[in-house]
Amino acid sequence: MRTLRIALAQVNTSVGDIDGNAELIIEGIKAARAAGAELVAFPELAITGYPPEDLVLHRRFVADNRRALERVAAEAHGISAIVGFVDGSPGRDESVYNAAAFLHEGRVAAVYRKIHLPNYGVFDEERYFGRGLECPVIDFGGVRIGMSICEDVWEPIGSAEVERAAGAEINININASPFERGKDGVRRELIGDMARRNQVYACYVNQVGGQDELVFDGTSLVYGPDGVLIAEGERFDEDLLVLDLDLERVADMRSSGTWEGPSDDELAEIGFSTDLPVARSGAVESSTVENSTLSEPLSEEAEVYRALVLGTRDYARKTGFEKAVIALSGGIDSTLTAVIAVDALGAENVLCVALPSRYSSDGSVTDAEALAQRLGIKLWNLPIEPAHAAFEEILEEEFRGTAAGLAEENVQSRVRGNVIMTISNKFGYLVLTTGNKSEFATGYATLYGDMAGGYAVIKDVPKTLVFRLCEYRNDAGPGSPIPRSVIDKPPSAELRPDQLDSDSLPPYEVLDRILERYIEDRWDAGEIIAEEVGLGGGDEETVRGVLRLVDRNEYKRRQAPPGVKITQLAFGRDRRMPIASRYRPH
Amino acid sequence: MRTLRIALAQVNTSVGDIDGNAELIIEGIKAARAAGAELVAFPELAITGYPPEDLVLHRRFVADNRRALERVAAEAHGISAIVGFVDGSPGRDESVYNAAAFLHEGRVAAVYRKIHLPNYGVFDEERYFGRGLECPVIDFGGVRIGMSICEDVWEPIGSAEVERAAGAEINININASPFERGKDGVRRELIGDMARRNQVYACYVNQVGGQDELVFDGTSLVYGPDGVLIAEGERFDEDLLVLDLDLERVADMRSSGTWEGPSDDELAEIGFSTDLPVARSGAVESSTVENSTLSEPLSEEAEVYRALVLGTRDYARKTGFEKAVIALSGGIDSTLTAVIAVDALGAENVLCVALPSRYSSDGSVTDAEALAQRLGIKLWNLPIEPAHAAFEEILEEEFRGTAAGLAEENVQSRVRGNVIMTISNKFGYLVLTTGNKSEFATGYATLYGDMAGGYAVIKDVPKTLVFRLCEYRNDAGPGSPIPRSVIDKPPSAELRPDQLDSDSLPPYEVLDRILERYIEDRWDAGEIIAEEVGLGGGDEETVRGVLRLVDRNEYKRRQAPPGVKITQLAFGRDRRMPIASRYRPH
Repeated sequence: MRTLRIALAQVNTSVGDIDGNAELIIEGIKAARAAGAELVAFPELAITGYPPEDLVLHRRFVADNRRALERVAAEAHGISAIVGFVDGSPGRDESVYNAAAFLHEGRVAAVYRKIHLPNYGVFDEERYFGRGLECPVIDFGGVRIGMSICEDVWEPIGSAEVERAAGAEINININASPFERGKDGVRRELIGDMARRNQVYACYVNQVGGQDELVFDGTSLVYGPDGVLIAEGERFDEDLLVLDLDLERVADMRSSGTWEGPSDDELAEIGFSTDLPVARSGAVESSTVENSTLSEPLSEEAEVYRALVLGTRDYARKTGFEKAVIALSGGIDSTLTAVIAVDALGAENVLCVALPSRYSSDGSVTDAEALAQRLGIKLWNLPIEPAHAAFEEILEEEFRGTAAGLAEENVQSRVRGNVIMTISNKFGYLVLTTGNKSEFATGYATLYGDMAGGYAVIKDVPKTLVFRLCEYRNDAGPGSPIPRSVIDKPPSAELRPDQLDSDSLPPYEVLDRILERYIEDRWDAGEIIAEEVGLGGGDEETVRGVLRLVDRNEYKRRQAPPGVKITQLAFGRDRRMPIASRYRPH
Repeated sequence: MRTLRIALAQVNTSVGDIDGNAELIIEGIKAARAAGAELVAFPELAITGYPPEDLVLHRRFVADNRRALERVAAEAHGISAIVGFVDGSPGRDESVYNAAAFLHEGRVAAVYRKIHLPNYGVFDEERYFGRGLECPVIDFGGVRIGMSICEDVWEPIGSAEVERAAGAEINININASPFERGKDGVRRELIGDMARRNQVYACYVNQVGGQDELVFDGTSLVYGPDGVLIAEGERFDEDLLVLDLDLERVADMRSSGTWEGPSDDELAEIGFSTDLPVARSGAVESSTVENSTLSEPLSEEAEVYRALVLGTRDYARKTGFEKAVIALSGGIDSTLTAVIAVDALGAENVLCVALPSRYSSDGSVTDAEALAQRLGIKLWNLPIEPAHAAFEEILEEEFRGTAAGLAEENVQSRVRGNVIMTISNKFGYLVLTTGNKSEFATGYATLYGDMAGGYAVIKDVPKTLVFRLCEYRNDAGPGSPIPRSVIDKPPSAELRPDQLDSDSLPPYEVLDRILERYIEDRWDAGEIIAEEVGLGGGDEETVRGVLRLVDRNEYKRRQAPPGVKITQLAFGRDRRMPIASRYRPH
């Protein structure tokens, strides 16, 4: 039986931590070798961390990355490795490449350069990288192995086809593919289809961990040449997936069916050339490894919740914070943020501060206290009345004769922002802000007030999903930390007497539907109105009003802290709208 | 004599204001026709405004732009026009194009699609546009005219060469080229060289006006076939440049010299095809127009100052603000910001607010008063002591036993931020913030404090240039608004007794040199240290310390307001650095 034992190492690298990442990769090589694997694959740009952004434009950075790769290569004895790195020398006229090195017997035996460079959504790869042109296929002790990087296999005819034409039996696809709700299913279909179409083992390895606004969910996948899933890595956690690939199955598939591959013309049109370095197998495996257990798919709430926890934990860790502080209003948003923070950082590392004003309900403080008790976290209660009154005094003369309104409401929120930031500056805690996506979209938040902080945990979570996540977390455990009263009370900013969100905004089910159509689907007003009328949801004026709010509040979002992207289109790098824009699609 | 009267219309369009831009273009067509021009050219993407960013991803936006182009085309009678617009239909699989329409006799006679799409610095054109493949050359009543868009003529062999090979005598190059200090000279060399190299009239038309962080400086240019400048448009102002091109000069140049154009192989390699629609001249010119006067180059201070004024004026105008409010500390940064605001918006539209704390010097208020008097602006004096004391009261218990430090200093700055934002919310004024580039770079600014506001006028101006701009403005007039004492006193944040900037930062000449090398030139620590040691400037620890500050403060810059880009590399879209980064090039 012709078999190959491979390992997929879904590691949690840190952007820019070239030495640390190299160490992590070397540990992975050693662990894979100890498990009897002959080949181990690491994610896209594992040496630099992903995405390295403008660091790639520094010559020194690319040189450091190259040195680290050589150091890693020196460890490739008794096992070979595929490692993502930046290839080439930077400079005005020379491109660098998003590349995969095939490391063998202590050296770089072959390099594959990414061909399809994503330059949409959060991706700017055309800004940094040249386009690869060659598809090397490795003869690995009689087993033919092709490589590809992320986007390359999202094309109908790509490197997988070219390499198959050159006899590849296995395609190792290295990735840094950010999480989005629902994307896991799309990837599975794609990778499975690539395997079946080309009658190859498709080995998808993805990085794991948070980086600024992105979370990578791991979930490495291996499909057999019939397109059936045979192994998968942990979701949202590091993992070393080791398994034996039976190459006879590839031969069987190929003898029993014909290959519907691209024509020679099509191959020539893509312009790839094929190269065949010859390498030999390292270790020879002995005992067979256990088959990986395939897991049930996660619910939307479960995958989003895990993404939020991992994103928050890694942002704190990778920016050097151990502890976090949160302004807790007793409302559902700050409550969910506090629970995520505890799950991410531990109860001993979370400080909550209640900052009641003269308009705060009694429930706001008692709900905060109930939550703090259930979570076992410290809660400070610092009424803001002295500062609130002081601002009234400072501005009394200039504001005389004007009616109280938004300005007076925002003062309170900004007093809270000041207190929480002062605590942060004093003790070195990371401020986690508590606004949700529905608020960011409509500008229902105070700049420098409740928007003030280092990381906005739920900024991409629509309000209706905030409710669902609270129910999910209470059901899933550990414990049921969220008081029922927090979930059930009508949402309010409590910045004036008897204020309710529903005074200013449509019901959240309607609002969130309109927002998703406008922001994620880029529908225009007419299309959204037609749908809402059909559903008995928002009327024309409601829809146009929401769209106006979204357009008008770009300036606030531009100054918002980063936070975890969980939808198909988050505010941040994902959405680049002018602030000064006269376009009104409503 | 074979001549052609052309007009270059450097208009100030607004992003997204498709109807307004179409009106502006139609007015330009009428004015050019009235001046006897046969052809008038407008800037790149004049219909949509530049850069339209993610608006281009909305199908409706592209459709609206197309309808506006048809409306403009209908006005092209008795004159032809070249107008920038978005060509094509958007959607998942269809590209749209950054294009120039040749409008003739009421219809779109030819379309040129931009070939070289900038995707570096502030530019993301690969995100939005497909690459053009054709270079149409217009036979315009016997005169052959080629078109090109911006970046296309920055390539050594581009559309200008292809069109020349097809007989073009004139190249109309439409642009939306953002201002940077010193860039004007680069452009002149480039366009002049393109003219001389191809023995054509090179007509460069650029848009004018501010858009978020970018300022477009106009300064349209016409070079003769010998590469000598013959006309130029206004700098930083709208203009309609009308002149007669003598085509005999092209014939003379070509008969006296040989063309060193690209080989057929080179042309084929670029992959352009050439097309030859035939069009006819519109109006026939009568009297000759006066020659344009060529102006002296502007000093660096003059061009930067004008960019700051135009950027500020247009940001306010295009986001719908008439009035601005500024926190005036009596320091040089807020003073310069106030003077620019007055030049941009008028004294009657600028409110300044002095917000002295217990640590403010007497000079801070008297200098603010002196400035306000010279500028004729309103000044409110609102001491912040009540709020400062209130925060101490709120935090007294939790902070007991800690030493006063940064947290206590920042409180004051954030009280000021709150007051100024409350005034903004109350009266609808735009808050102009006053931080300079040296502060943004090193994080010597308080997030949500002095960084709070809508537009950061001098955020890309290094401190040493702030001083030079003040001297320039006092010399250039009108008036000499800036008190000598403001320029001469040592810079201080005045957040604790006897504080000076020089306690925390190296001298500004040294600091600014280090910052420019690190940020704009992307030098690494070793290179900068070597230079500083050679110059007798900063020592190794100083350089490494500055670089550490720059790296550590990415999170603050990410939440900063937009402001005018004036250097080669501004913080903002221009510089995309990870916040969570472990890379330390020092």
